[in-house]
Amino acid sequence: MSRRKSRFLRKPVEPFAVTAGLSADELLSRMERISFQGRNLGTARRIWEKMLASDATIFLGTAGALSAGGMRMIIAHLIEHRYIDCLVSTGANLYHDLHETRGRRHFIGSPTLDDAALAAERIDRVYDTLASEDEFCRNDEWIAAFTLKLERRPYTTREYLYKLGEYLWKETSHQGILTAAYRANVPIFCPAIADSSIGMGISQGRHRDATAGQIDVIGDIIESANMVIRRPSTATIVLGGGTPKNFINQASVQAEFYSDKVTGHKYALQIVTDVPHFGGASGSSLEEAQSWGKLSIESEKVTVHGDVTLALPLLVSALETTSKDLLAKRKAPEFDVSGRLLVVNGHTLPDNRYSEA
Amino acid sequence: MSRRKSRFLRKPVEPFAVTAGLSADELLSRMERISFQGRNLGTARRIWEKMLASDATIFLGTAGALSAGGMRMIIAHLIEHRYIDCLVSTGANLYHDLHETRGRRHFIGSPTLDDAALAAERIDRVYDTLASEDEFCRNDEWIAAFTLKLERRPYTTREYLYKLGEYLWKETSHQGILTAAYRANVPIFCPAIADSSIGMGISQGRHRDATAGQIDVIGDIIESANMVIRRPSTATIVLGGGTPKNFINQASVQAEFYSDKVTGHKYALQIVTDVPHFGGASGSSLEEAQSWGKLSIESEKVTVHGDVTLALPLLVSALETTSKDLLAKRKAPEFDVSGRLLVVNGHTLPDNRYSEA
Amino acid sequence: MSRRKSRFLRKPVEPFAVTAGLSADELLSRMERISFQGRNLGTARRIWEKMLASDATIFLGTAGALSAGGMRMIIAHLIEHRYIDCLVSTGANLYHDLHETRGRRHFIGSPTLDDAALAAERIDRVYDTLASEDEFCRNDEWIAAFTLKLERRPYTTREYLYKLGEYLWKETSHQGILTAAYRANVPIFCPAIADSSIGMGISQGRHRDATAGQIDVIGDIIESANMVIRRPSTATIVLGGGTPKNFINQASVQAEFYSDKVTGHKYALQIVTDVPHFGGASGSSLEEAQSWGKLSIESEKVTVHGDVTLALPLLVSALETTSKDLLAKRKAPEFDVSGRLLVVNGHTLPDNRYSEA
Amino acid sequence: MSRRKSRFLRKPVEPFAVTAGLSADELLSRMERISFQGRNLGTARRIWEKMLASDATIFLGTAGALSAGGMRMIIAHLIEHRYIDCLVSTGANLYHDLHETRGRRHFIGSPTLDDAALAAERIDRVYDTLASEDEFCRNDEWIAAFTLKLERRPYTTREYLYKLGEYLWKETSHQGILTAAYRANVPIFCPAIADSSIGMGISQGRHRDATAGQIDVIGDIIESANMVIRRPSTATIVLGGGTPKNFINQASVQAEFYSDKVTGHKYALQIVTDVPHFGGASGSSLEEAQSWGKLSIESEKVTVHGDVTLALPLLVSALETTSKDLLAKRKAPEFDVSGRLLVVNGHTLPDNRYSEA
Repeated sequence: MSRRKSRFLRKPVEPFAVTAGLSADELLSRMERISFQGRNLGTARRIWEKMLASDATIFLGTAGALSAGGMRMIIAHLIEHRYIDCLVSTGANLYHDLHETRGRRHFIGSPTLDDAALAAERIDRVYDTLASEDEFCRNDEWIAAFTLKLERRPYTTREYLYKLGEYLWKETSHQGILTAAYRANVPIFCPAIADSSIGMGISQGRHRDATAGQIDVIGDIIESANMVIRRPSTATIVLGGGTPKNFINQASVQAEFYSDKVTGHKYALQIVTDVPHFGGASGSSLEEAQSWGKLSIESEKVTVHGDVTLALPLLVSALETTSKDLLAKRKAPEFDVSGRLLVVNGHTLPDNRYSEA
Repeated sequence: MSRRKSRFLRKPVEPFAVTAGLSADELLSRMERISFQGRNLGTARRIWEKMLASDATIFLGTAGALSAGGMRMIIAHLIEHRYIDCLVSTGANLYHDLHETRGRRHFIGSPTLDDAALAAERIDRVYDTLASEDEFCRNDEWIAAFTLKLERRPYTTREYLYKLGEYLWKETSHQGILTAAYRANVPIFCPAIADSSIGMGISQGRHRDATAGQIDVIGDIIESANMVIRRPSTATIVLGGGTPKNFINQASVQAEFYSDKVTGHKYALQIVTDVPHFGGASGSSLEEAQSWGKLSIESEKVTVHGDVTLALPLLVSALETTSKDLLAKRKAPEFDVSGRLLVVNGHTLPDNRYSEA
Repeated sequence: MSRRKSRFLRKPVEPFAVTAGLSADELLSRMERISFQGRNLGTARRIWEKMLASDATIFLGTAGALSAGGMRMIIAHLIEHRYIDCLVSTGANLYHDLHETRGRRHFIGSPTLDDAALAAERIDRVYDTLASEDEFCRNDEWIAAFTLKLERRPYTTREYLYKLGEYLWKETSHQGILTAAYRANVPIFCPAIADSSIGMGISQGRHRDATAGQIDVIGDIIESANMVIRRPSTATIVLGGGTPKNFINQASVQAEFYSDKVTGHKYALQIVTDVPHFGGASGSSLEEAQSWGKLSIESEKVTVHGDVTLALPLLVSALETTSKDLLAKRKAPEFDVSGRLLVVNGHTLPDNRYSEA
Repeated sequence: MSRRKSRFLRKPVEPFAVTAGLSADELLSRMERISFQGRNLGTARRIWEKMLASDATIFLGTAGALSAGGMRMIIAHLIEHRYIDCLVSTGANLYHDLHETRGRRHFIGSPTLDDAALAAERIDRVYDTLASEDEFCRNDEWIAAFTLKLERRPYTTREYLYKLGEYLWKETSHQGILTAAYRANVPIFCPAIADSSIGMGISQGRHRDATAGQIDVIGDIIESANMVIRRPSTATIVLGGGTPKNFINQASVQAEFYSDKVTGHKYALQIVTDVPHFGGASGSSLEEAQSWGKLSIESEKVTVHGDVTLALPLLVSALETTSKDLLAKRKAPEFDVSGRLLVVNGHTLPDNRYSEA
């Protein structure tokens, strides 16, 4: 046996030391030197900081019941302060956001409640969280009414959601995901809008007027890929997998098809509970994504295997403390989201053809 | 202590007995008397049989990478022999089906392959399964070319996919999910079509002609709910969660909103790997679904926690043996899927308004 | 793009074809050509066959609630027919086996039962399975009484469990894990016997006589490593992880420490639900085990990620059909388990020193 | 629809608000009002505080690779400051603690390292963490040498580990789990000591002297139950499941068998990654534990589904800030762990009979 340490044994694990009054920043900094998912969360902050220091357009994907579960003001904060540049979300997260921005609430419940009793009182349960079905029905009507105010032409989800945020802001003046995106001119895509209560609300608009509620999800594909084609580099942050994870990766693949200069996202961070070995996209590894060109072979990346509600508050609280300068210096892409076509740094992105210039 | 047995202790677990030459039917029958997920799979067959014996319209939802993973001919079989009446799928499962129906293949790989080496050879990895990216690109072009043959008007995914299946059948005469659905006149919905390579192919059609590739996902919502509104009862089988699981449940919720007679799916069977405690829809319990009215309070239901590739071959092989009579006697709904509007048992379902009659 | 197929794309996935009357063997054979955990289960059978065709001593580790869950007669079958040569188990699996061999039963329940009501009726729940606490108490007394019949000297768990199996057989003449091992002269180790109701029963023996109930778990370590040291090669089959998984690997590591000729298990098959990324031993990958020398670098190995009750009945039913000849030809090690020291093929293995000869 | 809110909808979810400079205490306090596992972690702190404010003897169980993964100084801190009163651990956690207390380190690696290369350099991998096998071998020798210094009589693991901690402290004067327990007179049980490198080290002591290394794991069962029998109430904190989880519950069950006054643990907190639906003890629900009498029907309890390295640093950092007064006022049981028999508040607990007085 050699006396010399192996090249593999260079950086020791530092046992986490307990201290009263530790800040979120200090806490997460100490976690960088432990193991397993704690370390991965520490690494996640550093990769996010690198995204902010780079020239990357940062996509955030949000699946699961994050808004109902108390994460919506974090997402709004990330949008407002441009920790991210584009949100891709399930409809549920936008709907539950709208619900609260409209002044309604989700409530603390328990997974062991009697669902027959809840059904009898018209209460909907999301694991340990509750909401009033009647209030949900009124949201649907509100969305239907809003939809009827729009022109009778197809809207990408990006344009539709901008208008929705605008209307919501004007009516409520409340902060939330949709209203923050409206005010910060940050685009939101919702590729599976038909699989959500937003979609149900739109369908109720059409029920009243057969010409209303035209949504152009194919336009979303083109617009999102054009965002990637035109940017020097891109980054992906995924919370929970689902359609947002794949849609962000798809933009990269589709863009690469049209432009040799696109080589996959340069940074990737995902917080997921799914695992790779069942073959689904939600749990798929970031290594696998490299085979597809979704991520660059040289990308910096980390997966945190854990619940977003457990990991995200600490991650963002720490990041908030250490990223002030990075945010101040950051040259985020400037969008005009208000029109039929998305404008990035003065360039209009078509929604009906792929285009480099 | 009483000598009398508790009311809870009535039906003993029967230890599984090993026998050579056991059939899939016998194997699964023995599993009904063991515990945990093995028992649940045994129960799943019995619930499926009850669906077939009832007046229910049976929805099947397929997420994950089932087609790439060797499950596509099972799904085609379920469609052809009317074990199910309506498929709700992710785009990926339809795309990978199209890939093989067009004569291409997926290949056996390993999760430990070097992804940089795969990327260099333009091979895409799905966990332990591989495919040629160049072949995928040619599929995309094929889909684009097909899309350009369609009229320049909005298509629901249901109508679009019927036409796609028809074209595929005429070109290949090969069995698969899309072609089986075309031939059996079984509707397919793909609520997140924008988040898939089918969507990418459509978008490439629009790239060539700005008026092509109009997809009406809101029409899907209305049509699927109208299917539920008009049927005496409904049932849901979910493989893997995702948008198909929610879309099938949403149809029930949306239908209930328009008709007092709708009270949630009467039978439910799901095979999922996600768990309830992170709050996401994929892993949500069937009990939780009852609070929403997605499932009837009296529904018969079972969740199998496991990988579909592990559970489905056994489940369907056993079912195939014992359901012959049930299938022969079954009065499945008769669809005409070929037109702009879906026809069920002679009644046309609108895609722009909710309607009971 | 080259016309020639990549070296990676050689063996296509074969979509599973549904056929009535399929046997377990045919079913599992078809699963070898699909993907994900279904394929892994197919591979598992082939690796087990290779174990049987080789000169390996085959260890089986059983954790979880397999006996309560209906798996005990499978394990007894594997012992009786020498699919395996040595069992390493949690105490719970042996205790629940003893419970049924003594004529008591576990019962079919549900995970949603009211636990307060169960507690009031003295019924113990294991997920969806129930048992009478009073019957358990009488088992404990039975074990205590048996323990008091033994000599007042330390017993390895291997010797103790042999005597327990012998006594159980003489009293009941019923087949089960303990009685099958007794009759087939197959050793059982229970490294965590103190963490089980077997241990509780022994402790009640000591409660009556302070000199009773001496268990020598350190002797188990030495004896199990000596089994590995003396054999040409070894194999490991793990159901569920836990202490049995590690104990079998530890035997290999400890053996290697004493003999250069030992190079880790040559074959490895595990069916586990835990995952690697939380750092625990139950979910640890077989690759990781290679870094430790637990497994040979050249080992053939497969992990099936799934519930044992879902995977094992199919695996063993298929194997039963195809392994007849292999079992007939197999030269399994011959044990004499009855004495203080374990005898393998005529050689006595010490329990107080590591020894190659 | 009634205007009055349902009784179920009383306490709203409060969206988490991002603030720079948040302390761990403030962070976790905000998480009490979100959903899913984040909320559960917030609740965990409050339950732990209730344990500290009560008259309960607090058991801590530690499984998984916590020490290698950077958690050992947290556990040492919990022991030193009497956040807990008794540790039940896997041998691995004590062994990796000893490794670092002896001045060796674990190292930061990656799960994608080449295990054949690691094996060639004699480096052992635990997911993303590495250690030198040669250093491990020297630990084994050190444990063997220590074991040979002990009397030639059976030791419970509790007594053995006290002596080990004492020796380690005298030799190194370094803080760690074993040395903290020695100095604070806190008992440690290791029910599966035979399944660990501690056990391997002891076995090497016996290899040198056949009369050395006698471990009395049955005495552990009796002693731990006697701890429960004599205490007004008990509480359980479980990190990771495994044998420690069950051993702590078993003490409660065994104690209840001997004393009507024992009614199960009064408080329970577990952080686990396993799930209930596969039937294993590690993932079993706290509700299920109530059916067995392991937990009191009235117990306050919470399960956090997540990785300990992700959850524990935040939990303990927050608790450290808010529990100063509780710790100061707490009347923890006073142990004398140094002798053959454990002494609690002046009363000697037998290790060979169950005893209330």
